[in-house]
Amino acid sequence: MATVTAPADPEADPRVKAVFDDIRATRGTDFINNVWRYLAFDPGLLETTWAEVKSVMATPSALDPKVKEMLYAAVSIANGCDYCTHSHLAAARARGMSAAEQADFFRVVGSAGKTNMLLNGLRVPVDAAFEMAQED
Amino acid sequence: MATVTAPADPEADPRVKAVFDDIRATRGTDFINNVWRYLAFDPGLLETTWAEVKSVMATPSALDPKVKEMLYAAVSIANGCDYCTHSHLAAARARGMSAAEQADFFRVVGSAGKTNMLLNGLRVPVDAAFEMAQED
Amino acid sequence: MATVTAPADPEADPRVKAVFDDIRATRGTDFINNVWRYLAFDPGLLETTWAEVKSVMATPSALDPKVKEMLYAAVSIANGCDYCTHSHLAAARARGMSAAEQADFFRVVGSAGKTNMLLNGLRVPVDAAFEMAQED
Amino acid sequence: MATVTAPADPEADPRVKAVFDDIRATRGTDFINNVWRYLAFDPGLLETTWAEVKSVMATPSALDPKVKEMLYAAVSIANGCDYCTHSHLAAARARGMSAAEQADFFRVVGSAGKTNMLLNGLRVPVDAAFEMAQED
Amino acid sequence: MATVTAPADPEADPRVKAVFDDIRATRGTDFINNVWRYLAFDPGLLETTWAEVKSVMATPSALDPKVKEMLYAAVSIANGCDYCTHSHLAAARARGMSAAEQADFFRVVGSAGKTNMLLNGLRVPVDAAFEMAQED
Amino acid sequence: MATVTAPADPEADPRVKAVFDDIRATRGTDFINNVWRYLAFDPGLLETTWAEVKSVMATPSALDPKVKEMLYAAVSIANGCDYCTHSHLAAARARGMSAAEQADFFRVVGSAGKTNMLLNGLRVPVDAAFEMAQED
Repeated sequence: MATVTAPADPEADPRVKAVFDDIRATRGTDFINNVWRYLAFDPGLLETTWAEVKSVMATPSALDPKVKEMLYAAVSIANGCDYCTHSHLAAARARGMSAAEQADFFRVVGSAGKTNMLLNGLRVPVDAAFEMAQED
Repeated sequence: MATVTAPADPEADPRVKAVFDDIRATRGTDFINNVWRYLAFDPGLLETTWAEVKSVMATPSALDPKVKEMLYAAVSIANGCDYCTHSHLAAARARGMSAAEQADFFRVVGSAGKTNMLLNGLRVPVDAAFEMAQED
Repeated sequence: MATVTAPADPEADPRVKAVFDDIRATRGTDFINNVWRYLAFDPGLLETTWAEVKSVMATPSALDPKVKEMLYAAVSIANGCDYCTHSHLAAARARGMSAAEQADFFRVVGSAGKTNMLLNGLRVPVDAAFEMAQED
Repeated sequence: MATVTAPADPEADPRVKAVFDDIRATRGTDFINNVWRYLAFDPGLLETTWAEVKSVMATPSALDPKVKEMLYAAVSIANGCDYCTHSHLAAARARGMSAAEQADFFRVVGSAGKTNMLLNGLRVPVDAAFEMAQED
Repeated sequence: MATVTAPADPEADPRVKAVFDDIRATRGTDFINNVWRYLAFDPGLLETTWAEVKSVMATPSALDPKVKEMLYAAVSIANGCDYCTHSHLAAARARGMSAAEQADFFRVVGSAGKTNMLLNGLRVPVDAAFEMAQED
Repeated sequence: MATVTAPADPEADPRVKAVFDDIRATRGTDFINNVWRYLAFDPGLLETTWAEVKSVMATPSALDPKVKEMLYAAVSIANGCDYCTHSHLAAARARGMSAAEQADFFRVVGSAGKTNMLLNGLRVPVDAAFEMAQED
């Protein structure tokens, strides 16, 4: 049960149709997943959200698309977002994440969760040395 | 101000010394950062925490060490862990994260934060299609 | 599936009945939603929780009831509380939140999620200027 | 201590200068707060972040600017974002939040935190009645 | 730097003085810690917050006071609350938490953080068997 | 719907069988709950996760097993972990948590959630006095 209602015929609205067309063209598939179907309750929010996701996740950039999906999933897990965890782990698999990489992913995410709680509890002062010069 | 006291002379305890020696050998540096100095308040907790971090983060595995540090930092940011965010971003830079990759990292983390809040609010049902076969 | 069992006949307990009667009188409806039915597993916890919610949310105060429900929903979204998100967005709608206001709400919540992650990652020092005098 | 370095002379970069000029014009003040000075480490991230904040927070919309700042602060508190909590509470005060409204804000945020934990623990099923029609 | 200003002479307000007197009497000490000094910015919020903390934490109940302080600290760590983590770990120590118990506490909190991230990522279905009868 | 697939015949893998045998022997029951059935997707992750949970939760230590389960549940609630909340509240009941203790647990967790939000919002400075000597 969602908190908003997905429009029954979203593409009757030309702004929604334009976004859905762009999703299909960008991804090369006819499948429109639920987040976009529900965001169509407000075409403006749909447009800005898709524009950002397209720009950040579907445009070539410094990081590999598979790595970007894994980073997205890592944040989503820590923020407890059920939908985002499913969608971005599925996207990481679609971009080539192997079973061994997925197990590694969970190992890192689990260890981070452990030391995050330890350090949020211990409140250890940050080392000055972490202010190291950035390599380029 | 931490919630526990770091021992003044931690390596007087042979169990602590053994861990610190292994940290130095594994990392090829004499620098022992604060989390280990404070965890020395309980040698058992120090041993198991270092054993896990060494196994997960300092042992060759399916994912690149740089990517693992970025994933660790992403979870730490979402969990609001100040120390972990600093230490793992520094580690990612030490393992070769470029300025362009770091900017990309923040773009992905920011977009994830945005849609995590949108989806935690909209409570959109998860698509059955996400249960796709895993590529290996 | 809940972690506690809702009593089958909660109003058999006079303390529970008194709270349910007050909920019905305060809200002007016979509908008792699930949180109260389950909290009835412990009448003391039911009494103090309802007393607080009634005092904070159902008593005239400086902020508009609609705005209070939206603030409640915003915190609930960030804390990943499914039930609270549903109940307080429903309450905001019942207190007059329009579709345009709801879309605006999601825009603000999404942008906050984005910059929360950016700033939790960047760890930018707080400006001294934010310690501005409060207007009254 | 931040995780990135704020450029010493940010407006030497014309893209940064254009954003800073727009911040000054939009807000009618010469004050540029730290988040923008640090985001200048990557002009692209600075541009997209400011464009979003300007569009969502500094453009007239269905909700009152003061209410939007309070919603932003509420999410920031729950996400543990120190900088964002300071900046958006300051902005809410600048947009007219009174002392009484601020106290009310904290009352609502505190009560939400309480029932968020109770409901995340009790895992009460969501009432079907919350799927009520939206008023417009 | 706090987001509100602690009154310079809080006990000039009789409502604040009454709360401070009760804190001193309940705890048997003249020390008033900062949370109460800052909450004095709004006497009503001070009164209700202290009344709740006194009722829940300083009144004999089913759980041992030391255990209650440790539970409070555990939630505070996961919610990233710096002040609460410090104050409730200090309170647990004052109520007799030994060094061995404190190390055990951190071990449990760390393991919980690890499996919380794993399970938030794996999204494993809850076993029907957990709906076991409660022992009394 | 989980994000990984639980093996249909997990004990066909001798590493998984060894872990399941140890779970049964340690707990004195034939019941293997879902988290272990799903973690069997990666025997290495299954082994290290069970080894940690066994060491921390199923080995006699300074804290009572019931208290450890309650602490685990408290962290899980704040991290929004549905599965962990169910499993560790069930374990606490199995280790003797009474109905009165459970109600007390929820009272403490709720109050912590409330003051966590208040203090994350007020950003009150930590008292130097909290750095008290630890009792042993």
